[in-house]
Amino acid sequence: MLYIVGLGLSDEHDITVKGLEAVKSSERVYLEGYTSILMVEKEKLEAFYGKDVIIADREMVESNSDEILRDAANVNVSFLVVGDPFGATTHTDLVIRAHELGIPVKSIHNASIMNAIGATGLQLYSFGQTISMVFFTETWRPDSWYDRVKENSDIGLHTLCLLDIKVKEQSIENMARGRLIYEPPRYMTVNQAAEQMLEIEDKRGEKAYTADTLAVGVSRLGSDDQIIRAGTLQQLVDVDFGKPLHSLVLVGSRLHLLEAEILRENAVDLEHLNMVLKRDYNIDN
Amino acid sequence: MLYIVGLGLSDEHDITVKGLEAVKSSERVYLEGYTSILMVEKEKLEAFYGKDVIIADREMVESNSDEILRDAANVNVSFLVVGDPFGATTHTDLVIRAHELGIPVKSIHNASIMNAIGATGLQLYSFGQTISMVFFTETWRPDSWYDRVKENSDIGLHTLCLLDIKVKEQSIENMARGRLIYEPPRYMTVNQAAEQMLEIEDKRGEKAYTADTLAVGVSRLGSDDQIIRAGTLQQLVDVDFGKPLHSLVLVGSRLHLLEAEILRENAVDLEHLNMVLKRDYNIDN
Repeated sequence: MLYIVGLGLSDEHDITVKGLEAVKSSERVYLEGYTSILMVEKEKLEAFYGKDVIIADREMVESNSDEILRDAANVNVSFLVVGDPFGATTHTDLVIRAHELGIPVKSIHNASIMNAIGATGLQLYSFGQTISMVFFTETWRPDSWYDRVKENSDIGLHTLCLLDIKVKEQSIENMARGRLIYEPPRYMTVNQAAEQMLEIEDKRGEKAYTADTLAVGVSRLGSDDQIIRAGTLQQLVDVDFGKPLHSLVLVGSRLHLLEAEILRENAVDLEHLNMVLKRDYNIDN
Repeated sequence: MLYIVGLGLSDEHDITVKGLEAVKSSERVYLEGYTSILMVEKEKLEAFYGKDVIIADREMVESNSDEILRDAANVNVSFLVVGDPFGATTHTDLVIRAHELGIPVKSIHNASIMNAIGATGLQLYSFGQTISMVFFTETWRPDSWYDRVKENSDIGLHTLCLLDIKVKEQSIENMARGRLIYEPPRYMTVNQAAEQMLEIEDKRGEKAYTADTLAVGVSRLGSDDQIIRAGTLQQLVDVDFGKPLHSLVLVGSRLHLLEAEILRENAVDLEHLNMVLKRDYNIDN
Protein backbone atom coordinates (compact mmCIF):
# COMPACT_ATOMS: atom_id res chain seq x y z
CA MET A 1 0.00 0.00 0.00
CA LEU A 2 1.16 3.51 -0.81
CA TYR A 3 -0.04 5.93 1.85
CA ILE A 4 -0.03 9.59 0.92
CA VAL A 5 -0.12 11.22 4.32
CA GLY A 6 -0.91 14.88 4.95
CA LEU A 7 1.23 16.30 7.77
CA GLY A 8 -0.77 19.45 8.37
CA LEU A 9 0.86 22.81 8.69
CA SER A 10 3.20 23.24 11.56
CA ASP A 11 5.00 20.53 13.50
CA GLU A 12 5.27 16.77 14.02
CA HIS A 13 2.17 16.68 16.25
CA ASP A 14 -0.09 17.90 13.45
CA ILE A 15 -0.16 14.47 11.80
CA THR A 16 -3.45 12.64 12.38
CA VAL A 17 -3.61 9.50 14.49
CA LYS A 18 -4.56 7.64 11.30
CA GLY A 19 -1.56 9.12 9.51
CA LEU A 20 0.79 8.19 12.34
CA GLU A 21 -0.50 4.61 12.27
CA ALA A 22 0.22 4.47 8.54
CA VAL A 23 3.76 5.80 9.04
CA LYS A 24 4.45 3.35 11.83
CA SER A 25 3.26 0.47 9.64
CA SER A 26 5.51 1.51 6.75
CA GLU A 27 8.76 -0.04 5.70
CA ARG A 28 9.97 3.17 4.04
CA VAL A 29 8.93 6.76 4.72
CA TYR A 30 9.47 9.60 2.21
CA LEU A 31 8.99 13.30 2.82
CA GLU A 32 8.11 15.43 -0.17
CA GLY A 33 10.43 18.34 0.20
CA TYR A 34 10.08 20.78 -2.66
CA THR A 35 6.63 22.36 -2.70
CA SER A 36 6.26 23.28 0.93
CA ILE A 37 8.04 22.96 4.24
CA LEU A 38 7.10 21.87 7.68
CA MET A 39 8.34 24.03 10.52
CA VAL A 40 10.39 21.24 12.08
CA GLU A 41 13.53 19.45 10.99
CA LYS A 42 13.59 15.97 9.53
CA GLU A 43 15.33 14.72 12.65
CA LYS A 44 12.36 15.68 14.81
CA LEU A 45 10.04 13.74 12.53
CA GLU A 46 12.34 10.74 12.68
CA ALA A 47 12.46 10.83 16.47
CA PHE A 48 8.69 11.16 16.67
CA TYR A 49 8.03 8.31 14.20
CA GLY A 50 10.89 6.10 15.35
CA LYS A 51 11.77 5.68 11.66
CA ASP A 52 14.20 7.03 9.09
CA VAL A 53 12.71 9.65 6.80
CA ILE A 54 14.01 9.99 3.24
CA ILE A 55 13.72 13.43 1.67
CA ALA A 56 12.19 13.09 -1.77
CA ASP A 57 13.13 16.03 -3.94
CA ARG A 58 11.42 16.91 -7.19
CA GLU A 59 13.94 14.98 -9.27
CA MET A 60 13.41 11.82 -7.23
CA VAL A 61 9.61 12.00 -7.44
CA GLU A 62 9.59 12.82 -11.13
CA SER A 63 12.25 10.47 -12.44
CA ASN A 64 12.68 7.81 -9.82
CA SER A 65 9.16 7.08 -8.64
CA ASP A 66 9.70 3.35 -9.12
CA GLU A 67 12.22 3.43 -6.29
CA ILE A 68 9.63 5.10 -4.03
CA LEU A 69 7.08 2.48 -5.07
CA ARG A 70 9.47 -0.47 -4.82
CA ASP A 71 7.71 -3.55 -3.42
CA ALA A 72 4.74 -1.41 -2.29
CA ALA A 73 2.35 -4.11 -3.47
CA ASN A 74 3.67 -6.18 -0.56
CA VAL A 75 4.79 -3.70 2.08
CA ASN A 76 3.52 -0.31 3.20
CA VAL A 77 5.27 2.83 2.00
CA SER A 78 4.38 6.32 3.27
CA PHE A 79 4.83 9.45 1.21
CA LEU A 80 4.47 12.46 3.49
CA VAL A 81 3.34 15.83 2.22
CA VAL A 82 3.04 19.08 4.09
CA GLY A 83 -0.62 20.14 4.36
CA ASP A 84 -3.15 17.88 2.66
CA PRO A 85 -2.43 15.29 -0.07
CA PHE A 86 -4.86 17.20 -2.29
CA GLY A 87 -3.76 20.68 -1.37
CA ALA A 88 -2.11 23.18 -3.64
CA THR A 89 0.06 20.50 -5.21
CA THR A 90 -1.16 17.04 -5.94
CA HIS A 91 0.99 14.07 -6.74
CA THR A 92 -0.91 12.75 -9.70
CA ASP A 93 2.11 11.27 -11.45
CA LEU A 94 3.05 9.16 -8.45
CA VAL A 95 -0.54 7.97 -8.03
CA ILE A 96 -0.94 7.12 -11.72
CA ARG A 97 2.35 5.20 -11.67
CA ALA A 98 1.19 3.30 -8.57
CA HIS A 99 -2.03 2.36 -10.35
CA GLU A 100 -0.05 1.12 -13.35
CA LEU A 101 1.97 -1.10 -11.04
CA GLY A 102 -1.18 -2.42 -9.34
CA ILE A 103 -0.29 -0.79 -6.02
CA PRO A 104 -3.24 0.34 -3.89
CA VAL A 105 -3.09 3.98 -2.81
CA LYS A 106 -4.71 5.55 0.23
CA SER A 107 -4.65 9.25 1.03
CA ILE A 108 -4.90 10.51 4.58
CA HIS A 109 -6.29 14.01 4.78
CA ASN A 110 -5.11 16.90 6.91
CA ALA A 111 -5.37 20.66 7.14
CA SER A 112 -3.93 22.71 4.30
CA ILE A 113 -3.41 26.42 3.85
CA MET A 114 -6.50 26.31 1.60
CA ASN A 115 -8.80 25.79 4.60
CA ALA A 116 -6.63 26.94 7.53
CA ILE A 117 -6.64 30.43 6.01
CA GLY A 118 -10.06 30.70 7.67
CA ALA A 119 -8.05 31.56 10.80
CA THR A 120 -7.82 35.11 9.39
CA GLY A 121 -11.53 35.49 10.17
CA LEU A 122 -12.32 35.66 6.46
CA GLN A 123 -15.09 33.23 5.52
CA LEU A 124 -13.97 30.36 3.30
CA TYR A 125 -17.31 30.70 1.50
CA SER A 126 -16.21 34.06 0.13
CA PHE A 127 -12.90 33.08 -1.40
CA GLY A 128 -12.55 32.94 -5.16
CA GLN A 129 -9.84 31.07 -7.01
CA THR A 130 -6.40 30.78 -5.44
CA ILE A 131 -3.31 32.20 -7.10
CA SER A 132 0.41 31.52 -6.84
CA MET A 133 3.01 34.26 -6.81
CA VAL A 134 6.54 33.46 -8.02
CA PHE A 135 9.74 35.36 -7.33
CA PHE A 136 10.24 37.98 -10.02
CA THR A 137 13.64 38.03 -11.71
CA GLU A 138 15.29 40.72 -13.82
CA THR A 139 13.82 39.24 -16.95
CA TRP A 140 10.78 37.25 -15.79
CA ARG A 141 7.96 39.10 -14.09
CA PRO A 142 4.87 37.03 -14.91
CA ASP A 143 1.49 38.62 -14.25
CA SER A 144 -1.11 36.14 -15.48
CA TRP A 145 -2.30 35.79 -11.87
CA TYR A 146 -3.48 39.40 -12.12
CA ASP A 147 -6.39 38.32 -14.34
CA ARG A 148 -7.44 35.77 -11.74
CA VAL A 149 -7.35 38.37 -8.98
CA LYS A 150 -9.42 40.72 -11.13
CA GLU A 151 -12.02 38.03 -11.78
CA ASN A 152 -12.32 37.47 -8.04
CA SER A 153 -12.41 41.14 -7.11
CA ASP A 154 -14.96 41.95 -9.82
CA ILE A 155 -17.44 39.75 -7.97
CA GLY A 156 -16.31 40.84 -4.52
CA LEU A 157 -14.40 37.71 -3.48
CA HIS A 158 -11.25 37.28 -1.43
CA THR A 159 -8.10 35.93 -3.10
CA LEU A 160 -5.63 33.63 -1.38
CA CYS A 161 -2.10 34.09 -2.73
CA LEU A 162 0.34 31.26 -2.17
CA LEU A 163 3.92 32.48 -2.12
CA ASP A 164 6.88 30.98 -3.92
CA ILE A 165 9.46 28.79 -2.30
CA LYS A 166 12.75 27.88 -3.95
CA VAL A 167 14.45 24.78 -2.68
CA LYS A 168 17.51 23.06 -4.15
CA GLU A 169 18.04 25.70 -6.81
CA GLN A 170 21.28 25.92 -8.75
CA SER A 171 22.84 29.20 -9.81
CA ILE A 172 23.15 29.58 -13.58
CA GLU A 173 26.91 29.38 -13.25
CA ASN A 174 26.84 26.17 -11.22
CA MET A 175 24.29 24.68 -13.58
CA ALA A 176 26.41 25.58 -16.61
CA ARG A 177 29.46 23.97 -15.04
CA GLY A 178 27.48 20.93 -13.96
CA ARG A 179 28.28 21.52 -10.30
CA LEU A 180 25.70 20.04 -7.94
CA ILE A 181 25.93 23.03 -5.62
CA TYR A 182 22.61 24.42 -4.47
CA GLU A 183 21.62 27.88 -3.35
CA PRO A 184 20.15 28.33 0.12
CA PRO A 185 16.35 27.88 0.13
CA ARG A 186 14.30 31.05 -0.36
CA TYR A 187 10.77 31.70 0.82
CA MET A 188 8.78 34.67 -0.42
CA THR A 189 7.71 37.07 2.30
CA VAL A 190 4.40 38.89 2.53
CA ASN A 191 6.42 42.08 1.93
CA GLN A 192 7.86 40.84 -1.34
CA ALA A 193 4.48 39.57 -2.50
CA ALA A 194 2.81 42.90 -1.69
CA GLU A 195 5.55 44.78 -3.55
CA GLN A 196 5.21 42.59 -6.63
CA MET A 197 1.44 43.06 -6.56
CA LEU A 198 1.80 46.83 -6.40
CA GLU A 199 4.28 46.77 -9.29
CA ILE A 200 1.88 44.80 -11.47
CA GLU A 201 -1.09 47.01 -10.60
CA ASP A 202 1.04 50.00 -11.64
CA LYS A 203 1.76 48.28 -14.94
CA ARG A 204 -1.71 46.90 -15.68
CA GLY A 205 -3.78 49.66 -14.12
CA GLU A 206 -7.08 47.78 -14.26
CA LYS A 207 -7.77 48.34 -10.57
CA ALA A 208 -7.99 44.70 -9.59
CA TYR A 209 -6.78 46.27 -6.33
CA THR A 210 -4.90 49.37 -5.22
CA ALA A 211 -2.21 50.23 -2.68
CA ASP A 212 -5.09 50.92 -0.29
CA THR A 213 -6.88 47.59 -0.78
CA LEU A 214 -7.22 45.65 2.43
CA ALA A 215 -5.13 42.52 2.70
CA VAL A 216 -4.19 40.05 5.39
CA GLY A 217 -0.70 38.67 5.76
CA VAL A 218 -0.12 35.45 7.67
CA SER A 219 2.95 33.52 8.70
CA ARG A 220 3.49 30.11 10.27
CA LEU A 221 -0.24 29.46 10.35
CA GLY A 222 -1.17 26.82 12.89
CA SER A 223 1.97 27.24 14.97
CA ASP A 224 2.18 28.84 18.40
CA ASP A 225 3.94 31.87 16.96
CA GLN A 226 1.68 32.44 13.96
CA ILE A 227 1.20 36.05 12.91
CA ILE A 228 -1.97 37.41 11.31
CA ARG A 229 -1.97 41.12 10.40
CA ALA A 230 -4.57 43.07 8.46
CA GLY A 231 -3.86 46.34 6.69
CA THR A 232 -3.58 47.89 3.28
CA LEU A 233 -1.36 46.26 0.70
CA GLN A 234 0.97 49.25 1.04
CA GLN A 235 1.19 48.80 4.83
CA LEU A 236 1.97 45.10 4.51
CA VAL A 237 5.10 45.95 2.52
CA ASP A 238 6.69 47.00 5.82
CA VAL A 239 5.30 44.57 8.42
CA ASP A 240 7.80 42.03 9.75
CA PHE A 241 6.19 38.58 9.56
CA GLY A 242 9.28 36.71 10.69
CA LYS A 243 10.23 33.25 9.55
CA PRO A 244 8.49 31.34 6.68
CA LEU A 245 5.99 30.25 5.47
CA HIS A 246 4.04 33.35 4.56
CA SER A 247 0.76 33.75 2.70
CA LEU A 248 -1.33 36.73 1.68
CA VAL A 249 -5.04 37.33 1.19
CA LEU A 250 -6.55 40.19 -0.79
CA VAL A 251 -9.86 41.14 0.82
CA GLY A 252 -12.84 41.30 -1.55
CA SER A 253 -15.54 43.96 -1.46
CA ARG A 254 -18.18 41.52 -0.22
CA LEU A 255 -16.64 41.73 3.24
CA HIS A 256 -19.08 40.86 6.02
CA LEU A 257 -19.39 42.77 9.30
CA LEU A 258 -18.23 39.79 11.33
CA GLU A 259 -15.20 39.38 9.09
CA ALA A 260 -14.34 43.06 9.53
CA GLU A 261 -14.58 42.62 13.29
CA ILE A 262 -11.77 40.08 13.24
CA LEU A 263 -9.68 42.15 10.82
CA ARG A 264 -9.83 44.93 13.43
CA GLU A 265 -8.43 42.60 16.09
CA ASN A 266 -5.41 42.02 13.84
CA ALA A 267 -5.06 45.55 12.48
CA VAL A 268 -1.64 46.95 11.58
CA ASP A 269 -3.13 50.42 12.21
CA LEU A 270 -6.67 50.35 13.58
CA GLU A 271 -7.49 53.96 12.78
CA HIS A 272 -6.47 53.63 9.16
CA LEU A 273 -8.23 50.27 8.88
CA ASN A 274 -11.48 51.77 10.15
CA MET A 275 -11.16 54.62 7.66
CA VAL A 276 -10.69 52.19 4.76
CA LEU A 277 -13.52 49.94 6.01
CA LYS A 278 -15.84 52.94 6.04
CA ARG A 279 -14.67 54.46 2.76
CA ASP A 280 -14.23 51.36 0.58
CA TYR A 281 -16.41 48.70 2.20
CA ASN A 282 -19.16 50.89 3.68
CA ILE A 283 -18.63 49.28 7.07
CA ASP A 284 -19.04 51.55 10.09
CA ASN A 285 -16.84 51.39 13.12
CA MET B 1 -7.65 27.28 27.86
CA LEU B 2 -10.44 26.69 25.37
CA TYR B 3 -9.26 24.34 22.65
CA ILE B 4 -11.29 24.30 19.47
CA VAL B 5 -10.26 21.00 17.94
CA GLY B 6 -10.94 19.95 14.35
CA LEU B 7 -11.79 16.24 14.13
CA GLY B 8 -11.35 15.86 10.40
CA LEU B 9 -13.87 14.11 8.24
CA SER B 10 -14.43 10.48 8.98
CA ASP B 11 -13.69 8.64 12.20
CA GLU B 12 -12.03 8.95 15.60
CA HIS B 13 -8.55 8.33 14.17
CA ASP B 14 -8.72 11.47 12.03
CA ILE B 15 -7.99 13.73 14.99
CA THR B 16 -4.42 15.05 15.00
CA VAL B 17 -1.93 14.00 17.64
CA LYS B 18 -1.96 17.62 18.84
CA GLY B 19 -5.75 17.57 19.03
CA LEU B 20 -5.75 14.30 20.94
CA GLU B 21 -3.27 15.72 23.45
CA ALA B 22 -5.59 18.72 23.97
CA VAL B 23 -8.60 16.45 24.52
CA LYS B 24 -6.71 14.28 26.96
CA SER B 25 -5.63 17.36 28.93
CA SER B 26 -9.21 18.67 29.14
CA GLU B 27 -11.54 18.54 32.11
CA ARG B 28 -14.62 18.73 29.89
CA VAL B 29 -15.05 17.78 26.24
CA TYR B 30 -17.91 19.08 24.07
CA LEU B 31 -18.83 17.91 20.58
CA GLU B 32 -20.52 20.43 18.34
CA GLY B 33 -23.36 18.42 16.90
CA TYR B 34 -25.52 20.52 14.63
CA THR B 35 -23.60 21.69 11.58
CA SER B 36 -21.95 18.45 10.55
CA ILE B 37 -21.56 14.88 11.67
CA LEU B 38 -18.71 12.52 12.13
CA MET B 39 -19.19 9.01 10.81
CA VAL B 40 -18.80 7.40 14.22
CA GLU B 41 -20.95 7.42 17.33
CA LYS B 42 -20.22 9.47 20.41
CA GLU B 43 -19.47 6.26 22.34
CA LYS B 44 -16.57 5.45 20.02
CA LEU B 45 -15.08 8.87 20.60
CA GLU B 46 -15.47 8.43 24.35
CA ALA B 47 -13.76 5.06 24.29
CA PHE B 48 -10.94 6.44 22.16
CA TYR B 49 -10.41 9.52 24.36
CA GLY B 50 -11.07 7.79 27.67
CA LYS B 51 -13.37 10.74 28.50
CA ASP B 52 -17.04 11.63 28.52
CA VAL B 53 -18.14 13.67 25.53
CA ILE B 54 -21.02 16.15 25.92
CA ILE B 55 -23.04 16.85 22.78
CA ALA B 56 -23.40 20.61 22.36
CA ASP B 57 -26.45 21.39 20.29
CA ARG B 58 -27.11 24.77 18.72
CA GLU B 59 -29.19 25.96 21.65
CA MET B 60 -26.46 25.14 24.13
CA VAL B 61 -23.74 26.89 22.14
CA GLU B 62 -25.89 29.94 21.45
CA SER B 63 -27.56 30.48 24.79
CA ASN B 64 -25.44 28.61 27.31
CA SER B 65 -21.88 29.25 26.22
CA ASP B 66 -20.92 30.32 29.75
CA GLU B 67 -21.47 26.74 30.88
CA ILE B 68 -19.14 25.50 28.14
CA LEU B 69 -16.57 28.10 29.19
CA ARG B 70 -17.00 27.54 32.93
CA ASP B 71 -13.65 27.78 34.76
CA ALA B 72 -11.77 27.57 31.42
CA ALA B 73 -9.36 30.24 32.63
CA ASN B 74 -8.06 27.61 35.05
CA VAL B 75 -8.68 24.24 33.40
CA ASN B 76 -8.64 23.06 29.81
CA VAL B 77 -11.90 22.62 27.92
CA SER B 78 -12.11 21.10 24.45
CA PHE B 79 -14.79 21.99 21.95
CA LEU B 80 -14.71 19.46 19.12
CA VAL B 81 -15.91 20.29 15.63
CA VAL B 82 -16.16 18.04 12.61
CA GLY B 83 -13.71 19.14 9.91
CA ASP B 84 -11.65 22.23 10.66
CA PRO B 85 -12.41 24.87 13.33
CA PHE B 86 -12.45 27.42 10.50
CA GLY B 87 -14.34 25.35 7.97
CA ALA B 88 -17.78 26.07 6.62
CA THR B 89 -19.04 27.10 10.05
CA THR B 90 -16.97 29.07 12.48
CA HIS B 91 -17.71 29.53 16.13
CA THR B 92 -17.14 33.22 16.39
CA ASP B 93 -19.66 33.80 19.16
CA LEU B 94 -18.01 31.25 21.42
CA VAL B 95 -14.56 32.69 20.71
CA ILE B 96 -15.69 36.28 21.30
CA ARG B 97 -17.35 35.27 24.59
CA ALA B 98 -14.14 33.49 25.66
CA HIS B 99 -12.16 36.65 24.91
CA GLU B 100 -14.61 38.72 26.99
CA LEU B 101 -14.06 36.32 29.89
CA GLY B 102 -10.28 36.49 29.52
CA ILE B 103 -10.03 32.85 28.48
CA PRO B 104 -7.24 32.00 26.04
CA VAL B 105 -8.37 30.15 22.91
CA LYS B 106 -6.34 27.84 20.73
CA SER B 107 -7.57 26.26 17.50
CA ILE B 108 -6.20 22.98 16.25
CA HIS B 109 -6.56 22.59 12.51
CA ASN B 110 -7.65 19.58 10.53
CA ALA B 111 -8.97 18.63 7.12
CA SER B 112 -12.33 20.01 6.06
CA ILE B 113 -14.53 19.34 3.07
CA MET B 114 -13.23 22.66 1.69
CA ASN B 115 -9.81 21.14 0.99
CA ALA B 116 -10.53 17.40 1.01
CA ILE B 117 -12.76 17.92 -2.02
CA GLY B 118 -9.47 17.89 -3.95
CA ALA B 119 -9.83 14.09 -3.76
CA THR B 120 -12.22 14.40 -6.73
CA GLY B 121 -9.21 15.23 -8.88
CA LEU B 122 -10.47 18.78 -9.38
CA GLN B 123 -7.78 21.35 -8.58
CA LEU B 124 -8.48 23.45 -5.50
CA TYR B 125 -6.96 26.38 -7.41
CA SER B 126 -9.91 26.35 -9.79
CA PHE B 127 -12.74 26.49 -7.30
CA GLY B 128 -14.78 29.66 -6.95
CA GLN B 129 -16.95 30.54 -3.98
CA THR B 130 -18.65 27.73 -2.07
CA ILE B 131 -22.43 27.55 -1.80
CA SER B 132 -24.85 25.88 0.62
CA MET B 133 -27.99 24.11 -0.51
CA VAL B 134 -30.90 23.82 1.93
CA PHE B 135 -33.83 21.40 1.81
CA PHE B 136 -36.65 22.93 -0.19
CA THR B 137 -40.07 22.94 1.43
CA GLU B 138 -43.53 23.47 -0.11
CA THR B 139 -43.28 27.17 0.53
CA TRP B 140 -39.56 27.92 0.78
CA ARG B 141 -37.37 27.23 -2.22
CA PRO B 142 -34.53 29.73 -1.92
CA ASP B 143 -32.31 30.26 -4.96
CA SER B 144 -29.88 33.03 -4.04
CA TRP B 145 -27.08 30.45 -4.37
CA TYR B 146 -27.84 30.37 -8.11
CA ASP B 147 -26.26 33.80 -8.54
CA ARG B 148 -23.09 32.56 -6.86
CA VAL B 149 -22.94 29.51 -9.13
CA LYS B 150 -23.41 31.73 -12.15
CA GLU B 151 -20.59 34.04 -11.07
CA ASN B 152 -18.31 31.03 -10.77
CA SER B 153 -19.38 29.43 -14.02
CA ASP B 154 -19.10 32.70 -15.96
CA ILE B 155 -15.37 32.66 -15.25
CA GLY B 156 -15.02 28.90 -15.70
CA LEU B 157 -14.61 27.89 -12.06
CA HIS B 158 -15.83 24.85 -10.15
CA THR B 159 -18.45 25.27 -7.42
CA LEU B 160 -18.50 23.21 -4.24
CA CYS B 161 -22.04 22.78 -2.91
CA LEU B 162 -22.40 21.88 0.76
CA LEU B 163 -25.62 20.02 1.43
CA ASP B 164 -28.11 20.67 4.21
CA ILE B 165 -28.35 18.61 7.35
CA LYS B 166 -31.27 18.86 9.75
CA VAL B 167 -30.61 17.71 13.30
CA LYS B 168 -32.92 18.03 16.29
CA GLU B 169 -35.77 19.54 14.29
CA GLN B 170 -39.29 19.74 15.69
CA SER B 171 -42.39 19.24 13.60
CA ILE B 172 -44.62 22.31 13.47
CA GLU B 173 -47.25 20.42 15.46
CA ASN B 174 -44.83 19.40 18.21
CA MET B 175 -43.40 22.91 18.31
CA ALA B 176 -46.92 24.41 18.62
CA ARG B 177 -47.77 22.08 21.46
CA GLY B 178 -44.46 22.71 23.17
CA ARG B 179 -43.50 19.03 22.99
CA LEU B 180 -39.73 18.45 22.98
CA ILE B 181 -40.03 15.66 20.45
CA TYR B 182 -37.55 15.78 17.62
CA GLU B 183 -37.72 14.46 14.08
CA PRO B 184 -35.10 11.96 12.93
CA PRO B 185 -32.02 13.72 11.47
CA ARG B 186 -32.05 14.32 7.72
CA TYR B 187 -29.09 14.66 5.41
CA MET B 188 -29.44 15.94 1.87
CA THR B 189 -28.33 13.47 -0.79
CA VAL B 190 -26.50 14.28 -4.00
CA ASN B 191 -29.70 13.20 -5.78
CA GLN B 192 -31.84 15.74 -3.97
CA ALA B 193 -29.30 18.49 -4.49
CA ALA B 194 -29.06 17.75 -8.22
CA GLU B 195 -32.87 17.76 -8.50
CA GLN B 196 -33.16 21.08 -6.72
CA MET B 197 -30.47 22.53 -8.96
CA LEU B 198 -32.29 21.40 -12.08
CA GLU B 199 -35.55 22.87 -10.79
CA ILE B 200 -33.94 26.26 -10.21
CA GLU B 201 -32.21 26.26 -13.61
CA ASP B 202 -35.63 25.59 -15.15
CA LYS B 203 -37.03 28.54 -13.25
CA ARG B 204 -34.16 31.00 -13.74
CA GLY B 205 -33.03 29.90 -17.17
CA GLU B 206 -29.77 31.87 -17.14
CA LYS B 207 -27.69 28.82 -18.01
CA ALA B 208 -25.47 28.89 -14.96
CA TYR B 209 -25.49 25.16 -15.77
CA THR B 210 -27.70 22.67 -17.58
CA ALA B 211 -28.88 19.10 -17.05
CA ASP B 212 -25.83 18.11 -19.08
CA THR B 213 -23.28 20.06 -17.05
CA LEU B 214 -20.62 17.83 -15.55
CA ALA B 215 -20.74 17.41 -11.81
CA VAL B 216 -19.06 15.22 -9.22
CA GLY B 217 -20.94 13.71 -6.31
CA VAL B 218 -19.06 12.53 -3.25
CA SER B 219 -20.07 10.75 -0.08
CA ARG B 220 -18.26 9.92 3.15
CA LEU B 221 -15.09 11.60 1.89
CA GLY B 222 -12.01 10.41 3.73
CA SER B 223 -13.58 7.13 4.86
CA ASP B 224 -12.75 3.68 3.52
CA ASP B 225 -16.10 3.48 1.74
CA GLN B 226 -16.08 6.94 0.20
CA ILE B 227 -17.80 7.24 -3.20
CA ILE B 228 -16.74 9.69 -5.91
CA ARG B 229 -18.78 9.65 -9.13
CA ALA B 230 -18.59 12.01 -12.10
CA GLY B 231 -21.41 12.51 -14.57
CA THR B 232 -23.94 15.01 -15.75
CA LEU B 233 -26.18 16.68 -13.21
CA GLN B 234 -29.07 14.70 -14.69
CA GLN B 235 -27.20 11.41 -14.25
CA LEU B 236 -26.36 12.20 -10.63
CA VAL B 237 -30.08 12.40 -9.81
CA ASP B 238 -30.12 8.59 -9.99
CA VAL B 239 -26.76 7.46 -8.59
CA ASP B 240 -26.92 5.82 -5.16
CA PHE B 241 -24.30 7.44 -2.93
CA GLY B 242 -25.31 5.56 0.19
CA LYS B 243 -25.09 6.93 3.70
CA PRO B 244 -24.33 10.61 4.54
CA LEU B 245 -22.55 13.00 4.30
CA HIS B 246 -22.84 13.94 0.65
CA SER B 247 -21.42 16.89 -1.27
CA LEU B 248 -21.61 17.98 -4.88
CA VAL B 249 -19.29 19.87 -7.22
CA LEU B 250 -20.33 21.59 -10.43
CA VAL B 251 -17.45 21.40 -12.89
CA GLY B 252 -16.40 24.71 -14.44
CA SER B 253 -15.45 25.19 -18.09
CA ARG B 254 -11.81 25.81 -17.24
CA LEU B 255 -11.36 22.08 -16.74
CA HIS B 256 -7.80 20.89 -17.19
CA LEU B 257 -6.77 17.73 -19.06
CA LEU B 258 -5.40 16.13 -15.91
CA GLU B 259 -8.62 16.86 -14.04
CA ALA B 260 -10.64 15.29 -16.86
CA GLU B 261 -8.43 12.21 -16.64
CA ILE B 262 -9.51 11.61 -13.04
CA LEU B 263 -13.16 12.36 -13.80
CA ARG B 264 -12.96 9.51 -16.33
CA GLU B 265 -11.74 7.12 -13.63
CA ASN B 266 -14.88 7.92 -11.65
CA ALA B 267 -17.34 8.15 -14.54
CA VAL B 268 -20.98 7.14 -14.09
CA ASP B 269 -21.03 6.45 -17.85
CA LEU B 270 -17.64 6.79 -19.54
CA GLU B 271 -18.95 7.01 -23.07
CA HIS B 272 -21.36 9.82 -22.24
CA LEU B 273 -18.71 11.59 -20.16
CA ASN B 274 -16.26 11.52 -23.07
CA MET B 275 -18.95 12.91 -25.38
CA VAL B 276 -19.67 15.81 -22.98
CA LEU B 277 -15.94 16.45 -22.40
CA LYS B 278 -15.45 16.74 -26.16
CA ARG B 279 -18.58 18.77 -26.89
CA ASP B 280 -18.65 21.18 -23.94
CA TYR B 281 -15.06 21.30 -22.72
CA ASN B 282 -13.20 20.70 -25.98
CA ILE B 283 -11.24 17.87 -24.36
CA ASP B 284 -10.46 14.88 -26.57
CA ASN B 285 -10.61 11.33 -25.43
